[in-house]
Amino acid sequence: MELPVVSIVGNSNSGKTTFIEQLIPELKSRGYRIATIKHDAHKFQIDTPGKDSWRHRQAGAETVVLSSRNKLAMIRELEREVDLDKILSNYINSEVDLVITEGYKTGDKAKIEIFRPAEYEQPLFSETDEQILTIVRNEEEFSAQQLDEVADLIEEQIIGLG
Amino acid sequence: MELPVVSIVGNSNSGKTTFIEQLIPELKSRGYRIATIKHDAHKFQIDTPGKDSWRHRQAGAETVVLSSRNKLAMIRELEREVDLDKILSNYINSEVDLVITEGYKTGDKAKIEIFRPAEYEQPLFSETDEQILTIVRNEEEFSAQQLDEVADLIEEQIIGLG
Repeated sequence: MELPVVSIVGNSNSGKTTFIEQLIPELKSRGYRIATIKHDAHKFQIDTPGKDSWRHRQAGAETVVLSSRNKLAMIRELEREVDLDKILSNYINSEVDLVITEGYKTGDKAKIEIFRPAEYEQPLFSETDEQILTIVRNEEEFSAQQLDEVADLIEEQIIGLG
Repeated sequence: MELPVVSIVGNSNSGKTTFIEQLIPELKSRGYRIATIKHDAHKFQIDTPGKDSWRHRQAGAETVVLSSRNKLAMIRELEREVDLDKILSNYINSEVDLVITEGYKTGDKAKIEIFRPAEYEQPLFSETDEQILTIVRNEEEFSAQQLDEVADLIEEQIIGLG
């Protein structure tokens, strides 16, 4: 079965991370288990300099896994990017109910755009675009109503499709 | 084909991470691609507070993946530990030539013990134990000869078995 996926897209600094941060608890309160995938155009650093995982990688390990009783982490150096569908099939536990991506605006998944009118003249997409579920206006903060409406849409149109 | 694996074991503070840090460049200079798996008894923190991946996890995402052109990272909350063979089959790229684990002293892989006589009276294992390739004495630093000999052993007895 394909995992339900929705991509939160928008210009940089439009508030995508903040929106996701507030949407996850709303969806969890409805009983869904959530995974996220953040698409990063830049080089990101995830591990902390000096820690063992960092020391393994600095020494030249291409893949480093950290495993404990309650957590698993993996960092891998790549020669080319792994595409979204491969991430979904290889790295996401099938026990989650919904995958939220931050980014992947050129991907083929259903999308919600975060649009911040104070920073941009117009959104990237139009409400009528087939892949767009909705465009959420970021007026410096998201209202409970906005979050509730988006969670409803995701329940009906993304999770409901499963 | 099974991946060649060697476990670097020893009491805490015996110098396992430092040894691995120095062994990896020696093995890389011989042309091998290396992955590492660190077994952590404690709770580890890998992501940096305030960063987007951390914010996703704090909000309640059970799995968070970060993907860029040259790196992939994944952090997953678990209900129980993933065993080593499952990590090897699910999270380690088959293109590596050798997997070095830090820890897993009760596992069934070939082992090299790091023994620090200044801290402990005797090693955990005996040289005659079947799974023990060798016991490396940590006399406050590892010599080029120690590293060279261990790399030879790994080449002959671990990678050579493939």
